[in-house]
This record gives sequence, structure tokens and C-alpha cells, in this order.
Amino acid sequence: MPMHRIAVLNGPNLGELSSRETEHYGDLAYDELERYCIDYGRELGLDVHCRQTDGEGELVRLIHESAAACDGIVLNAAAYTHTSVAVRDALLCVSVPVVEVHLSNPAAREDFRRRNLIVDVVSGSVAGFGSRGYGLALSGLKELLA
Amino acid sequence: MPMHRIAVLNGPNLGELSSRETEHYGDLAYDELERYCIDYGRELGLDVHCRQTDGEGELVRLIHESAAACDGIVLNAAAYTHTSVAVRDALLCVSVPVVEVHLSNPAAREDFRRRNLIVDVVSGSVAGFGSRGYGLALSGLKELLA
Amino acid sequence: MPMHRIAVLNGPNLGELSSRETEHYGDLAYDELERYCIDYGRELGLDVHCRQTDGEGELVRLIHESAAACDGIVLNAAAYTHTSVAVRDALLCVSVPVVEVHLSNPAAREDFRRRNLIVDVVSGSVAGFGSRGYGLALSGLKELLA
Amino acid sequence: MPMHRIAVLNGPNLGELSSRETEHYGDLAYDELERYCIDYGRELGLDVHCRQTDGEGELVRLIHESAAACDGIVLNAAAYTHTSVAVRDALLCVSVPVVEVHLSNPAAREDFRRRNLIVDVVSGSVAGFGSRGYGLALSGLKELLA
Amino acid sequence: MPMHRIAVLNGPNLGELSSRETEHYGDLAYDELERYCIDYGRELGLDVHCRQTDGEGELVRLIHESAAACDGIVLNAAAYTHTSVAVRDALLCVSVPVVEVHLSNPAAREDFRRRNLIVDVVSGSVAGFGSRGYGLALSGLKELLA
Amino acid sequence: MPMHRIAVLNGPNLGELSSRETEHYGDLAYDELERYCIDYGRELGLDVHCRQTDGEGELVRLIHESAAACDGIVLNAAAYTHTSVAVRDALLCVSVPVVEVHLSNPAAREDFRRRNLIVDVVSGSVAGFGSRGYGLALSGLKELLA
Amino acid sequence: MPMHRIAVLNGPNLGELSSRETEHYGDLAYDELERYCIDYGRELGLDVHCRQTDGEGELVRLIHESAAACDGIVLNAAAYTHTSVAVRDALLCVSVPVVEVHLSNPAAREDFRRRNLIVDVVSGSVAGFGSRGYGLALSGLKELLA
Amino acid sequence: MPMHRIAVLNGPNLGELSSRETEHYGDLAYDELERYCIDYGRELGLDVHCRQTDGEGELVRLIHESAAACDGIVLNAAAYTHTSVAVRDALLCVSVPVVEVHLSNPAAREDFRRRNLIVDVVSGSVAGFGSRGYGLALSGLKELLA
Amino acid sequence: MPMHRIAVLNGPNLGELSSRETEHYGDLAYDELERYCIDYGRELGLDVHCRQTDGEGELVRLIHESAAACDGIVLNAAAYTHTSVAVRDALLCVSVPVVEVHLSNPAAREDFRRRNLIVDVVSGSVAGFGSRGYGLALSGLKELLA
Amino acid sequence: MPMHRIAVLNGPNLGELSSRETEHYGDLAYDELERYCIDYGRELGLDVHCRQTDGEGELVRLIHESAAACDGIVLNAAAYTHTSVAVRDALLCVSVPVVEVHLSNPAAREDFRRRNLIVDVVSGSVAGFGSRGYGLALSGLKELLA
Amino acid sequence: MPMHRIAVLNGPNLGELSSRETEHYGDLAYDELERYCIDYGRELGLDVHCRQTDGEGELVRLIHESAAACDGIVLNAAAYTHTSVAVRDALLCVSVPVVEVHLSNPAAREDFRRRNLIVDVVSGSVAGFGSRGYGLALSGLKELLA
Amino acid sequence: MPMHRIAVLNGPNLGELSSRETEHYGDLAYDELERYCIDYGRELGLDVHCRQTDGEGELVRLIHESAAACDGIVLNAAAYTHTSVAVRDALLCVSVPVVEVHLSNPAAREDFRRRNLIVDVVSGSVAGFGSRGYGLALSGLKELLA
Repeated sequence: MPMHRIAVLNGPNLGELSSRETEHYGDLAYDELERYCIDYGRELGLDVHCRQTDGEGELVRLIHESAAACDGIVLNAAAYTHTSVAVRDALLCVSVPVVEVHLSNPAAREDFRRRNLIVDVVSGSVAGFGSRGYGLALSGLKELLA
Repeated sequence: MPMHRIAVLNGPNLGELSSRETEHYGDLAYDELERYCIDYGRELGLDVHCRQTDGEGELVRLIHESAAACDGIVLNAAAYTHTSVAVRDALLCVSVPVVEVHLSNPAAREDFRRRNLIVDVVSGSVAGFGSRGYGLALSGLKELLA
Repeated sequence: MPMHRIAVLNGPNLGELSSRETEHYGDLAYDELERYCIDYGRELGLDVHCRQTDGEGELVRLIHESAAACDGIVLNAAAYTHTSVAVRDALLCVSVPVVEVHLSNPAAREDFRRRNLIVDVVSGSVAGFGSRGYGLALSGLKELLA
Repeated sequence: MPMHRIAVLNGPNLGELSSRETEHYGDLAYDELERYCIDYGRELGLDVHCRQTDGEGELVRLIHESAAACDGIVLNAAAYTHTSVAVRDALLCVSVPVVEVHLSNPAAREDFRRRNLIVDVVSGSVAGFGSRGYGLALSGLKELLA
Repeated sequence: MPMHRIAVLNGPNLGELSSRETEHYGDLAYDELERYCIDYGRELGLDVHCRQTDGEGELVRLIHESAAACDGIVLNAAAYTHTSVAVRDALLCVSVPVVEVHLSNPAAREDFRRRNLIVDVVSGSVAGFGSRGYGLALSGLKELLA
Repeated sequence: MPMHRIAVLNGPNLGELSSRETEHYGDLAYDELERYCIDYGRELGLDVHCRQTDGEGELVRLIHESAAACDGIVLNAAAYTHTSVAVRDALLCVSVPVVEVHLSNPAAREDFRRRNLIVDVVSGSVAGFGSRGYGLALSGLKELLA
Repeated sequence: MPMHRIAVLNGPNLGELSSRETEHYGDLAYDELERYCIDYGRELGLDVHCRQTDGEGELVRLIHESAAACDGIVLNAAAYTHTSVAVRDALLCVSVPVVEVHLSNPAAREDFRRRNLIVDVVSGSVAGFGSRGYGLALSGLKELLA
Repeated sequence: MPMHRIAVLNGPNLGELSSRETEHYGDLAYDELERYCIDYGRELGLDVHCRQTDGEGELVRLIHESAAACDGIVLNAAAYTHTSVAVRDALLCVSVPVVEVHLSNPAAREDFRRRNLIVDVVSGSVAGFGSRGYGLALSGLKELLA
Repeated sequence: MPMHRIAVLNGPNLGELSSRETEHYGDLAYDELERYCIDYGRELGLDVHCRQTDGEGELVRLIHESAAACDGIVLNAAAYTHTSVAVRDALLCVSVPVVEVHLSNPAAREDFRRRNLIVDVVSGSVAGFGSRGYGLALSGLKELLA
Repeated sequence: MPMHRIAVLNGPNLGELSSRETEHYGDLAYDELERYCIDYGRELGLDVHCRQTDGEGELVRLIHESAAACDGIVLNAAAYTHTSVAVRDALLCVSVPVVEVHLSNPAAREDFRRRNLIVDVVSGSVAGFGSRGYGLALSGLKELLA
Repeated sequence: MPMHRIAVLNGPNLGELSSRETEHYGDLAYDELERYCIDYGRELGLDVHCRQTDGEGELVRLIHESAAACDGIVLNAAAYTHTSVAVRDALLCVSVPVVEVHLSNPAAREDFRRRNLIVDVVSGSVAGFGSRGYGLALSGLKELLA
Repeated sequence: MPMHRIAVLNGPNLGELSSRETEHYGDLAYDELERYCIDYGRELGLDVHCRQTDGEGELVRLIHESAAACDGIVLNAAAYTHTSVAVRDALLCVSVPVVEVHLSNPAAREDFRRRNLIVDVVSGSVAGFGSRGYGLALSGLKELLA
């Protein structure tokens, strides 16, 4: 059986991970996060491909493309989690399983981060484990694909 | 008298029309929707030009360009209808008539789709007739231009 | 094939159309509006019958009667759009298609006009085109009946 | 001792009972509902008189008339339960006991049906038993009159 | 100069004035209220005509008729003050001055009576003086007509 | 046919019925209430078993046990009606019919008693008839079991 | 019988009446308003004394003093109507009748003017008649004192 | 190094897992869930101890006991997630890491399940993976303990 | 005269006082708090009996028992202060005076601690003095019993 | 050691204590309240100085002056408790301990009295013990100063 | 051309600037702030006059006086920014330009500081630059007067 | 000392400045605004670089780039001020000072413009001075850099 192909999509500001608040985001650089996901995926037998974008429209497009080309999606929509109906609508078109991941725990921060426009249209969600959460999300996705 | 030139602008996820929920969006592909608009427009004596984008900023730009080059706009802002002050601000700059169209009836879906940031700054709106609504919007726009 | 029979139902204050605010309602008298609907319908091959009432209960009854005697309904519930659960309940009993129409754009007026108790139980809606909106509504209804 | 005289008042759309959504209202026709109330009342030793109206003002009048002519009222105000201060005001004038009845359970439907303007000014309420609820309401009313 | 003709319009439940809660409405019967208005008006040189209705649609019609036949209106919309967009819309059609009157002080009662849909479209308002408030309203209306 | 077995479950503070506010709860002691239920049930041909607890978790357990051992449940969840998602969740597991009963009319008291977390997951509800409401609930339950 | 002594108390910014927005406050200077009240009162047989202050605490004191020295109070609390619990508390200490007056109709202006902290603790209120409202308030107060 | 000792605490109704709604909770019995956790933990080198309770106070006590006896806690507070300040307060006393887990995705159900009183005081959270989520939570907890 | 018998009731998590956040709860252990209350009471001539429970239902029972056996109650309902209608209902049954006490100032913490379901049904309340507040509450209770 | 100097500051309407509602404020005159505080303070070894003002700005000034001249403050801000950000800001400048006191229990009255702008910036608070609460507040303040 | 005369008005607690929280207000004393404004104004060619008051009514009066005597106003209404309709009403009477200034950024503090009752009736606003903001406000005012 | 390098970033629709509503935005073209900023900056000794974009993601990127290449940022986020958590998150990564500027006063327009997602994470803000506000922002930024 060929390996499952998985897209790991990261939203706005995650490309500048190392300059974000350390107490929320840890001290990993974005490159290291990508590397971690690919390596962790390989151990699970998953073929992981990472993409990052700051744009809402571009994230919508990445979701559509990944839905066509991959078997599952790990999505950290970052700020768009709280504001984007467009990302939600994109997820509603998708038939492969999607797992939401957050580095920190958004609920422990500003009130407006308690509003989450995608949590009810993804299969599962993981939050608060820092970069390790991506590993858990990939494991969870593998379970859902089994 | 030359034909009126009309821009039909479509927002995020409409390019993937055929993969969206059938009960809300019908089973027309995006290409067919464009074709329907152009043909229906020609019968009304309107010169219809269609554009689609997933980006909020790009939609803002298309509105500015259309306002400069066309006599009227049919706009399906899709998800940005509910979240974009930028699209609203773009419409506030426009002096040609704009008709809002929705394939389905947003009010019959999630609560946050009841919030509409553009409905009070367009000339008219049409919702719930599926792709046929574009035809009605073009007819209505023609009336407004008369 | 016999012509479709269509009821055009108008709610409170529309009988005094010519005395309402011109910027919202135009300068057509109610008689002229009825005449326009009948003529426009005839061109579309529709047999249009118009009724107007100021009473909520009477509007409920007209909806029941029209549902029994007609193939479709164009409804301008006017103020009852924003306050009447009874009209909504009447529409929930109806199996023929109903198209909602508004002369002006209620969303561009007082806040309480943003509450719409019927929009999610009609097939389609048309707003902001003045009396021409009745023509669009009849066209749309014809599409829905096709 | 003469039989108690009881008014059973039904509000908007209940006259079209058989055309309403079966999952909420059962499949009894309005005539059968009236018949059931009269028969059930007779077994309890109550003289039951039924009235139905779609009008808010007419329902107000029926309440005033029933308060003058009867010993108790069973009221299904239907949609006016959620919107009518006038019906509430009428009940505040009434000195005979009033029992509210609903065929279905309004709280299990749309949010606006959770707003109930009369529940705190009636003696008792019964909901969710379909047409059988009228029987329970009559039994309860008999207890209150004892 | 001929006497000004004034309509005094009373809404739902006011016809049963004597059976309403004494602490809010005093102990005047409706007939006496009408008599008081006519007499008080005559002293002010006003020709007063009184009407009462329980129906929302009928109140809308009375407003239209009074606007056509009278020089001013004193309106106690009672419960419809708090729920009727239709009455508000009727008042928006009216070009003669309208003075709102309430027997009791609605703000001192249930919360939903704090919502007033007509107060911002009438010329003046008087509340809390019992039946004497009608006299003050007539005096105020006379001032506005001067 | 054997008698239906019915659980009557009473929540917090109902064991102290005789010390609660008389205007809301009447003057029956809890023992008398149990006795009334058993006797009334026997007349209806129902085998009634009563339980009372002050604990939320214990009420959850009683619901599970009753669902396994009985044919129907009459439930007065008292204060937990307004605060307990756990009781709601327990009811969602239950396949026998449940009828909610309240001695007084909660809606006529503090605002927070208007929030009801179970009303939309029970079959029927009865309120405001004092201890007689238990009799009506048992009658209604019998109808639902028929 | 000696004349009733009446305090007319005016709150913040009313001393600058002639510099306020003409469409809300008319073009009377504050001196003329005082003069009008005294003269109008004399015709009614009332001994009117006017005071104005911009301070919340000072208005509280004026209410206490007037309650001790006068038979009734006409109060235009202006901005404090919408923000002052202290003025409300002062009115709760007062045993003479108080009539609230507003030159314009606060409900037709900004939303925060819809909040009124005193309307439910005064005897009556008059709004929207400009300076003539003070005359109506004095008449109403005389009725209440009768 | 000795194995980490982990408490897996389950709140109300989870003991009746097999009778809950299959679409939200899967078809695993509670015994099987415990077995799965213990086995999965052993593979990770964790010594897992499971407890279930329906009581809020008992869950508080289990948290205190587990905080004293274990190195980490996996908590599915079920309904108490949405209502219990007491459970939150218990977690605030705890110095070992806590991971929250939910079988289904609460955000995709009733509105009141969007209120989460503990999410901002736990280290991480996992939702929507069914019983597999317990495995992910144990893995995540192991990472946090490393 | 015999000494007054006073119950000091402590709710959830207070048994673990020494492990709670020091900035809110000080560094007293629960045993010391009990000791302080008994000693302080003795100096005031009060016979103090302390109880602690984590359970909502158990707290309800303790209130009922204390109301029967004691002359007054000092209550720290802790988390149940903010969530429990059942505790409120228990207090409504009680005829002896109850004084509410909090170690810290709940209003200075999370928003949901601003909701207090019992403050309006106790005789007095004391907050923010740490363990000394129990002494003040006992003094206050003594005053109320005098 | 010299006696601690304590300011007891009373806000609006407390100077008219004897004319306020007896059920909320008892029947003590303001002079007696001052006398009670001074005497009670002396027994505790505190040098108490009392001030009362109706003005918000004056209360701000008294707080600044007392903070400079005294060792602690007992504050009954009365109505300003619910409306004054200025009083809150003054308290934020103060480094001596402040204890808030209320004669009655504000939470048991109008809704707007549930909003308290100072409770989270004082050291402790005492409510509902009538004038005896000042004694408890002085005792508590003494504890805080120890 | 004579120098423009500018009033710099400071509201409650600003006189105690040096005792306020340093992180919000810096460490300038009020005298130094006045000196800075006068000097900075002189460099811009403005004749600056400073006033400070803790009273709402007094601030209203200062605004009226400044409007009569000056060419422009720089206003730091401090706490009254968030609570005073009276100050807003005073500004509505003023025809000279007004610039609002805040030392800190109110939006970054408590929620109630997000409510600003004057921002929409001033010409411009400057916040977050500490005492330097007064200089920017004076510069901006000079631009507006040019 | 080299000149400070400053980025002036403009968000959506500002490129079409001359076609926006004159009463809110003045009559300056975008090119002139850039020219004004560069010239005004040069006089202050600042090296100003201007950028404009309609895209949210692009604005995020410009903020990251400017933070790396410049000593300070003047930001007019326009519509994204009210909707973009992504822009807020970008600002949270930035260590150079940022000053927010608005041509008009957003608070004086639609309600949704009162929501500002960035005001609490910038150093200072300037609004309402038209294009002159950019000059004030640059002056303020210079002060912050001093």
C-alpha cells in the first residue's frame, strides 16, 4: 500500500514563528517546524508536504488544491480560525479528513480567540502542545484514515 | 446605443462550485455559470465579463477596476459578504449600480451568515434562485441602468 | 398547458403606497403596482391575482387560500416580515413556491428591519429594485415553476 | 351543580392543522381536534366551546368574551405566544383560570419560539403531548376550578 | 376659523379598561374616557373623535383614515407600541402631528415594555397621568397645531 | 398485560417541600406528594416508584437506572432544570418517554429560571398545577405509552 | 387655599440652551424658559421656582431641598437622565409628585439616550413639545396635586 | 526510571457510553474504553488508572486525589466542562499537567457546549477523534512530562 | 441564655485550601481555618460547628440540616456561588440568618465569578479579608441574631 | 503606638438617610451613623473621621485627601459605586487599604446595581448589615492594618 | 495676527498625576504637564491656558466658558470620557474645534474604557503618547485652525 | 546619527483615496498623500517609505518586512482595523514602535467601526485630522524613538 499523502497547511504569521511571543509559540523556527512534521510523518508512514501563507484567499486555494491532491489535511489556520468564513466554506467543500491544530491554547488568550469558525467542520482538533501538537495531529489523522 | 458593459464578480470558493454542497449550490460547474451569465446577458443586450477570486484584497481591486471600466456590477461576494469591511469600503467608492446575488439563501444557514456587511450599500439584491439568480440580477441591473 | 396562476400578496401600509416615504418606496400608486404585476405576468404567461391587507391574521388567511388556489406566491409582507411568527407559520404550511419581494432594501434602514422572520422559509427573495422587483420576482417564480 | 363552561381558544394557523408539518403537529384535522375537546370535556363534566382565529385582535376579543361567559379558558395562542403583548394584556384582565397548551414542544424548535410572552400570566401550561395535551389541559383546568 | 378635528385612537384592550389592573389603569370605564376626551377637547376648541380597536391591521387603517380626515392624532397604541412595525410604518406615512399617550408608565413595568417602536416617529409623548394624560396630549397637540 | 412501571424522580430541595415558599410550592409535605403519585398512578393502572435526591450526579444515575428498569419517567429536576448539562446528557441516553413536571411556573420567577436545559429533550411538559401536575404528567405519560 | 409651590429643576447644559442644537432644543434662551414657566405657572395658580445646575451632586441636593420646601417638582435632568443612579436615588427619597420633562424626544436620538434611569420612579413624563412641554408638565402636576 | 503514573478521569454519563448517541460517541462500551487506555498507556510506558463518576463534587475529589498520587491527568469532564466552576477551581490547585479530551467535537453541537470553563486552565486539549483521542491525549501528556 | 449555635459551611475545593493559589486564598490550611472559626466564635459567645463538602447536593443537604439544628449559618459556597440554583433554592427554604463569606474578592477575578446566584437571598456578605472574613461574618451574624 | 486615623467617606443621598426607603436603609439618621462610627472606632482604637458628599468630583477629592492624611478608608460610594469610573480611578491612586461598605444588599435590588465599578479595586467589602456593617468594615480595616 | 487662544482642560484625577499608575501615566507631575503644554504651545504660536477639575458639572462649565473665550480646546476628559453624557452634550454646543487626548491607550485597559461617549463629537483624537500627546494635540489643533 | 527609517503602510482602498467619500477622506489623491508623508518626514529628519496594499495577507507581510528593515511604522490598516486578527498577530511579533493613524474618525461612523482589533497593541494612535494626521503620527513616532 502506498503511503498516505498529507498536506500540513499553516496560516498567517506562522512563517515568522521565531519572532512571535515565546510564551505562546515556543522557540522553534518555521523551518524546524516543517522539518519536524516531515520527519514525524515519515515515522508514521505518512508523506507530509508543508505550505505556509499569510493570505486568506491563498489559504482557501491551498485547501482546494490539497483536497484534490492529498489524503488528509492538518490545518493551523492561525488568525483566520477566528475571522474567516471563506476558509470555513473551503473546508465544507473538502471530502478528505481535516485535523485542526494550534500551537498554544487560543481559549486562554483574548476573548475574540474564543470564536472559532472552523472547529465544527473539521474531524478533530488538537491544541496547546506547541509544535508537538503537529505530531499528535498527524497521528490522529492516521487513525482517521485507517 | 452601445451595449452596457457589465462585470460579474464572484468571490471565494465559487471557482470550486461543483465540489460545494449540492443542496445549497446546485450542480452547475463554475464554467457553466460564466457561460450562462454571458449568454443571458447577450439576450438582454448586455456585454457581460466574469471574474472570480478567492482573495479579499483581489476582490477589492476587481471592484475598483470594474467601477472604472463597466456600467454596472453583479457581485456575489460569497463568504466576504459576512466578514469584509474592505469590500464594503470598496463599494462605497463605486458610482455605478451594484446588484448583490447569492445562489442559496444565506439566512437559512448558520447564524453568522445573517450578518451582511454589504446589503445596505448595494442597489438591489437577489437570493435563493440558484444560478438563475444571476439572470434575475442582470435583468434588474438593466432596469436600474434604464 | 394552462397558464400558471400566481398570487401577489401585499401586506400592511402598501395600500397607501403613494403616501409613503418617496426615497424608500418610489412614487407609484398601489393601483399602478397591481396593474404592473398583472401586465408583467401576462407577458411571462402567468395569470396574476393581487391582494392587499393591513391585518396579520388576514394575511395568514390569504396565504392559506392562495396556497390552495394558486401555483406560486409573490409575497411582500412589509412590516410583518420583521414581527410575525404567524405569517412564518403560514408559509411553513405551504407547498407551492413563494418568492419574497421588498420595494426598498430593509437592511439599509432601522436595525429592527434586519430581523427577518420569513427569509429562511421562502424559495427566493428580491429587494431594492422598487416596483420592478415584482417583475423580477415573477420571473424568478416562473423559473422555479419550470 | 351545573357543568363548568370552558372556552378552548385556538390561534393562528391551527385551522389548517392538517396541512402543517406532521412531525410537530400530528395528523389530526382541526375539526377532529374540536370534536376531541368537546367529547373529552363531556367525560370530565365540562361544557366545552371551541373557537379558532388567525387574527391577533380577534384573539384578544375572544379572550375578553370568554372571560365574561365562561368559567375557564384553555388557550393555544400558537404564534402569538411568542410575539403578542396584546394577548398578554388581555390575559391580565381575566379573572378566570387559563391553561396554556401547545401541540408540540416550542422549545425544541427555532430560538424565537423560546420567547413566551404569556407563560408567566397563565395558571398552568401543558406542551408536547399533541392533541392529547388538550385533554390534559382540560383535566388540569378542572382541578384548578375544584 | 373652524375647529381643528382631532382623532383619538385607542389600541388593544383599552375597550375593557374597567377590567384591567387598577394600579396601572385607574378605574375609569372606556366610555367615560371617550366622554372626557370629547369634553376636554371642546373646552380647548377641538373637535374630538374617538375610536378603539383590538386589531393591529385595523389600527393601521384608522391611522390612515385619520391622517386623511383630521388635523392631528392622539394615539394610545397600547400593546402595539411595543411590537408593531406596521403601526410605525403607518405613522411614517402621516403628515399631521401625532401625540402618543399612555395611561400608566410602561417603563415601570415589564422589560419588554421598554421597547417602544413609535416614540421616535411621533411629535410628542405623555405618560403616567392616567386618563388626565389624554387632556395633556390634546393640549400639547393644540400647541403643535398653533 | 402487566402494569407499566413508572419512575417519578424528584431533584434538589423537593425533599424539604414543606419548608419551601408556600406561594410557589403549596403546603404538601414530600411524603404526601409520593403517596399522591403512587395512588394516582394505581388508578391509571401504573406502577409508580418515587425517588428524591439533592445531588446532580445522583440524579444522573437515577435516570440511567430508571431508563433500564421502567417504561417511563416523570421528572421534576427542580434547580438542575436550569443548570445541568449532565442531566440533559443523561436524558439523551434514555429511550423511554420522559415527562417533565414543575409544581410552580418557573417562567414567572427569576430570569435565570427561564433557561431550561431539558425541555427540548423530553416528550412533554406540565407546569403550574402544584402537586396535581404530577397526576397530569402520569396521565400524559400513559397516553404516550399507549 | 395657598398656592402650591413648585420647583422646576433643570440639569446640565440647559443654562446654555441658546447655544445647543436648534433642531433638538428650539431657539429659546434659558432666561426665557424660566420666565415662561413662572408665567405659565401663575396662570395655573402655581408658585413656580426655577433652578439650573450642571453638577450631578448639586442636582441631588436641589431635589432634596425641593422635596422639603415644595409641593411638587418638574424635573429635566437632561444628560443625567441617562447616567445618574444618584439622581434616581434622590427621587426615591422624595414623597412629593415629580414630573419629568424633555424638550426634545430623547428616543429619537443616540441609542444611549434610550436608557432612562428615572422614568420608572417619577409620576408622569412629557417629551417632545419643546419649551411648551414645561407648561404641560405643570398642568399635569397640578392634576396630580388635586 | 519508574513508569509515570497517569489518572484518566471520566465525568458524568460516560459510564453509560454504549447507550449514548452513536453519532457523537461511537459504539465502544465504557469497559472497553478503560481497557484501551490502559493498554495504550502501557505501550507508551505509562501506568494508567481509570476512574469514572457522575458527580461534580466527586470529580473534584478525584482531581485532588489524582494530583497527589499521579504525574499527570487525562480528563474528560463531559457535561461539567460546560457548567462547573468547581472543577475549574480544582484544576487551578493542581500542579501536574492535565490534558482535556472529548470523544466528539462539542463545538459542533448545541450552543451551550461552546462554553468551556476548563479549556484555558489545562495544558492541552484533544477533541473529535472518538476513543482514539484518549490515546492521543496520553501521547501528548507523555510529551509534556518529558 | 444558652450560646447561639452556628454552622460554618464550606463548599468545593476549600478542603484543599493550602494547595490553592496563594495570592487569592492565603496560606492557611483548612484545619487551621476551622480552628480559627471555632476559637473566634467562642470569644463572641457562639458555638461554632464547621463542615466542608465538594458536592452540590451535599451542600444543599448541609444547609437543610443546619437550618434545622442551628441559629445561623456562615456560608462560603465557593464555586457553587456562581453556578448553583440548587444552593439558592436551599437558602430560600431557610429561616435562620445566613451570612456569605469569601476569602478573596471574586469580582477581581474571571468574569463568570461576577455572577452570584445567592448574594440576593442572604442577609449579609463579607469578601476580601482572607480567613479574617470568617471572624467578621461571625460578628455580623451575632449582630443579626441580637 | 498612635491610633490609626481612618476616613469614613459617604457618597450621594446618604446625608438624607432618614428619608430613604426604610426597608433598604433602616431608620438611623445620618448624624447617628457618624456617631456610631466614631464610637465604634474608638473602641477598636481607631481615630475615625466622617465625611459625606453628593458630588462625584468631590468624592474623588475626598479620596485623594484621605489617602494623604489617613491610614485607611471605609467607603460607601452609594450610587457612584455603579456609575463612576472617576471614583474607581481615584481608588487606583490610593496606597492605603480601602474597605467598601453598603447598608443594604445592592444585588437584591435593580439590575443596574449589580454593576460595581469599584469592588475589584478595594481590599475588602461588607454589605447587607445596615449601619452595623460600618462597624464590621472598621474591624476588617483594623485587621488589614495589623 | 494675534495668537490663537487655546484651553487645555483636564478631568478627574489628573491633578494627582504623580500618584497614578506609572505604567499608564508616566512620572510627570501635573504642574509639569501644565508647564509643558504652555511652553509647547508658545513654540507653536498658541496661547495656552490650562484648567483641571474632578467634577463632571464643573467640566461642563469649563467647556462652555472655553468655547466662549478660546479658539480651540484640547480635552482630556479622563474617566468622564467613558461615562458622561453631560460632557458630550456640552461638546455638542461648542463651535470651536476640540481635540481629545489621552496619556495612555484606554482601549488597552478595562473593557468599560472601550466605551467612549465623546470620540464621535470631537474633531480629532490622540492617544498613547504620554504627556507628549498634548504636544501632538496642540499641533493638530493648530492645523485645524489654519 | 543616521536618519530613522520609517515605513508608512496603507491598507485596503486607500489607493483609491480620491474616489472615496469626500466628507470622510478629504480630497487628496493617494500620490499626494505619499508625497506629503515623505516631505513631512524629511523635515522631521525621518526617511519615510510608503506602501499600499488591498490584501490582508500582503499587509501582514509588509508589517513583517518593515519590522525587519525599519525603525518604526505608521499604519493605516483601514478596513482591516476592524476585522483582522492576522494583522493584530503580525503587530504582536513587531518590536519597533507602531503608530496607528486614521484619516477620519471611525467612531463617528457605522457601529462595526467601533470594533478595533489593533488599538491595544500599538504604541499610539491619531485619528480625525485627515491627511495631517500622518504628519502628527510621524511626529509622535519620532518622540517615541527619542
